[in-house]
Amino acid sequence: MRSERRLFLADGPKAVEGALSVPGCVVEVFATPAATEQYAGLATEAVEVPWTLVDDRALASLSDSVSPAGVVALCRHLDRPLDDLLSTPRRLVALCADVRDPGNAGTVVRCADAAGVEVVVLAGSSVDAYNPKTVRASVGSLFHVPVAVEPDAAAAVRAARAAGLTVLAADGAGEVDLFEADELLTRPTAWLFGNEAWGLPDELAALADHRVRIPIHGRAESLNLSTAAALCLYASARAQRRTLQE
Amino acid sequence: MRSERRLFLADGPKAVEGALSVPGCVVEVFATPAATEQYAGLATEAVEVPWTLVDDRALASLSDSVSPAGVVALCRHLDRPLDDLLSTPRRLVALCADVRDPGNAGTVVRCADAAGVEVVVLAGSSVDAYNPKTVRASVGSLFHVPVAVEPDAAAAVRAARAAGLTVLAADGAGEVDLFEADELLTRPTAWLFGNEAWGLPDELAALADHRVRIPIHGRAESLNLSTAAALCLYASARAQRRTLQE
Repeated sequence: MRSERRLFLADGPKAVEGALSVPGCVVEVFATPAATEQYAGLATEAVEVPWTLVDDRALASLSDSVSPAGVVALCRHLDRPLDDLLSTPRRLVALCADVRDPGNAGTVVRCADAAGVEVVVLAGSSVDAYNPKTVRASVGSLFHVPVAVEPDAAAAVRAARAAGLTVLAADGAGEVDLFEADELLTRPTAWLFGNEAWGLPDELAALADHRVRIPIHGRAESLNLSTAAALCLYASARAQRRTLQE
Repeated sequence: MRSERRLFLADGPKAVEGALSVPGCVVEVFATPAATEQYAGLATEAVEVPWTLVDDRALASLSDSVSPAGVVALCRHLDRPLDDLLSTPRRLVALCADVRDPGNAGTVVRCADAAGVEVVVLAGSSVDAYNPKTVRASVGSLFHVPVAVEPDAAAAVRAARAAGLTVLAADGAGEVDLFEADELLTRPTAWLFGNEAWGLPDELAALADHRVRIPIHGRAESLNLSTAAALCLYASARAQRRTLQE
């Protein structure tokens, strides 16, 4: 039985809508009378969940947003054991090692959702998936994609390989060019992304099957984490879907 | 003659290095003794520019960073008239309309640089290119890619078309799928990106030759601006470079 103490807040209509779409996730919704009127559709979706009216001041105390939208959901943690999530055959997984900025982590979850990723793993010393900034930057996607938390990043890589996934490390010095690797990308893949400032530690990158670089055509030294993740995940989605069509 | 009052600050070693790479850009460098020692290579590059030693407190007053790196360059504005920049034949241009978040704008400039974009236009009510957060988020790329500022976004689109560029609007409801458009993408292209929250106004999107959507495979409603820009710009770079190789 999951402990009820593992709770977090989903702030704003998109996040609350996402939370309500996950059965059993929302414990209670708090909303101002104005937001209850504005987001009447949400209240309709929340039939089995208590919907409590609060005043603006009480709502603001639940929100870390500068301009709260007036609706917040108290949610149960959503992460599931990595082994469970990898016991089903997967085609596309995103594995974040030591991602520390909460906004970056949320944006990667959002991209992963858009690209059709089936599991996101927050590994190593990555930021808390339930940090309010992570939840907000994911724009609801934290509730769409199953998430696992694995403090041992190397163990997460080994688990992905044991589940039959090819592990591709995103690495500016990688030996494979992302845009010359369509055949490789058609395989069931777990992408491994490192810290936004210092990238992947060598010993972790070495555990991957291949290290893949995004070609830099101009004079930028690198890309930021979420744009790199978007390019890698969509390159896989494109190659995999093209193969399925043929 | 450019007015010397059009000045801005480049904060941190990457930005200062970028600024020093542009002839005539840097008026003066301010650095702490510790940073002067740590970034001795920069001081060597700055032979024709005054390098002034300041104490930590004076440096902090020039930096808006929470933890200043100890080196700041006073720079002249870099933007050039759009007509000048489009008088040379271009293959890839990024046109940002009403991009308001300084971090987003800087990240788009960084992606554009990485993807080999030749001109970035900050159009409409877009954020100031010299906002400290924009400069920082560009990680030096503001100094690598020529930038134009055009307050009339529709005029910028017309100028791009007049210069022989196909204008592609990034639009979640676009009629063309980004990953099914390789032939279109081989043309000399100006990508048009809208505001991070509300996208492109219909009348501006209508001025483009085509509206292009990034396919969403999962349940995310959209991508954020910089990840969308990275996917579009790299899709063009990939298609154009593949054609050149053939």
